[in-house]
Amino acid sequence: MPQKPLLVAMDLEGVLVPEVWISVAEKTGIPELRLTTRDFSDYSALMSHRMKILDQHRLTLRDIQDVINTMQPLPGAVEYLNWLRERHQAIILSDTFYEFASPLMQKLGWPTLFCNSIHADENGRVTGYTMRVDNGKKRATLAFKQLNFRVIAMGDSYNDTDMLKEADLGILFRPSENVRREFPQFQVVSEFTEVVDIINAFCNQP
Amino acid sequence: MPQKPLLVAMDLEGVLVPEVWISVAEKTGIPELRLTTRDFSDYSALMSHRMKILDQHRLTLRDIQDVINTMQPLPGAVEYLNWLRERHQAIILSDTFYEFASPLMQKLGWPTLFCNSIHADENGRVTGYTMRVDNGKKRATLAFKQLNFRVIAMGDSYNDTDMLKEADLGILFRPSENVRREFPQFQVVSEFTEVVDIINAFCNQP
Repeated sequence: MPQKPLLVAMDLEGVLVPEVWISVAEKTGIPELRLTTRDFSDYSALMSHRMKILDQHRLTLRDIQDVINTMQPLPGAVEYLNWLRERHQAIILSDTFYEFASPLMQKLGWPTLFCNSIHADENGRVTGYTMRVDNGKKRATLAFKQLNFRVIAMGDSYNDTDMLKEADLGILFRPSENVRREFPQFQVVSEFTEVVDIINAFCNQP
Repeated sequence: MPQKPLLVAMDLEGVLVPEVWISVAEKTGIPELRLTTRDFSDYSALMSHRMKILDQHRLTLRDIQDVINTMQPLPGAVEYLNWLRERHQAIILSDTFYEFASPLMQKLGWPTLFCNSIHADENGRVTGYTMRVDNGKKRATLAFKQLNFRVIAMGDSYNDTDMLKEADLGILFRPSENVRREFPQFQVVSEFTEVVDIINAFCNQP
């Protein structure tokens, strides 16, 4: 009797691609945009902070998209994701926005992405955002389990830890020191080759 | 306020690729293998029939995989799926088996696939199969809706009609005459260009 099929649910930023807002902070020279979910445990407070800074500097959605267009996947991410998709199912669970993600998804070969939507007015001013669903990463992970997949979840931030808890196996990929200390129950990896080894070992368990 | 993101759930065989078992019947010259879910409404009876015929003709899993390796996506399917994945989320919901699907998934660019598992013994004799979950297409469609996607579902067969009913919009793609007659509530299309038009119109609804 074969095992259940495996689905690997992954965060996007910090795992497969660089942090978008850190890239925007660097390209625009606005250090206040550097803070991410690695620093804030409250996403809504983080987004309010970002939108206030964007307004102060009159940065539009298009300005952010221009920065994202210049970004590349992290070294090894494309090869890892190709390896994974040839063997198992892979879905990216991210708190980013579809309006940001397209150029990065193209570079990753258009994997399936569950994320959120950002709103801009006719002048491109970012006016708000819609989280598709509360705690979407954890709920998607639970849904995959209920559809009888075994689920490995991998992320780097506070907003990933609920999905890591929900998964059959949770992996922290290059987490910040505070996340690593607060969640000692998860394996910590820093290279994609280690992730491949963990997935192979997980599949070889009886 | 933008609309919810769109996820298109699609059947595989008869929609994106030819029917695997019809191809096996043709390549092996065994007409009894031609019957598909377009003919049988009871999948378990259909699979028992297939496994009996395979045994009678001493056909192994490898023989079936050899046939599948020669198959190509239906004309226009790759272009349609690329168009879709650049704009919306796409997940293939199929009653086929992962052990069959890989060469076809490669030709489609490794989209996400929710399907089932087939078992073979050490000689390659097909000994059984595991449906990942009962009524998996419908349950996955419901899960996507609960994760706050709008869902369009597309299929051609009896085993697709439950997911078409569950979706926000159901499309029959080149259905058999009996399926078309039995389910007059679904739009019937025969070309991918029509599917693109339907998706665009659906997204432009308020």
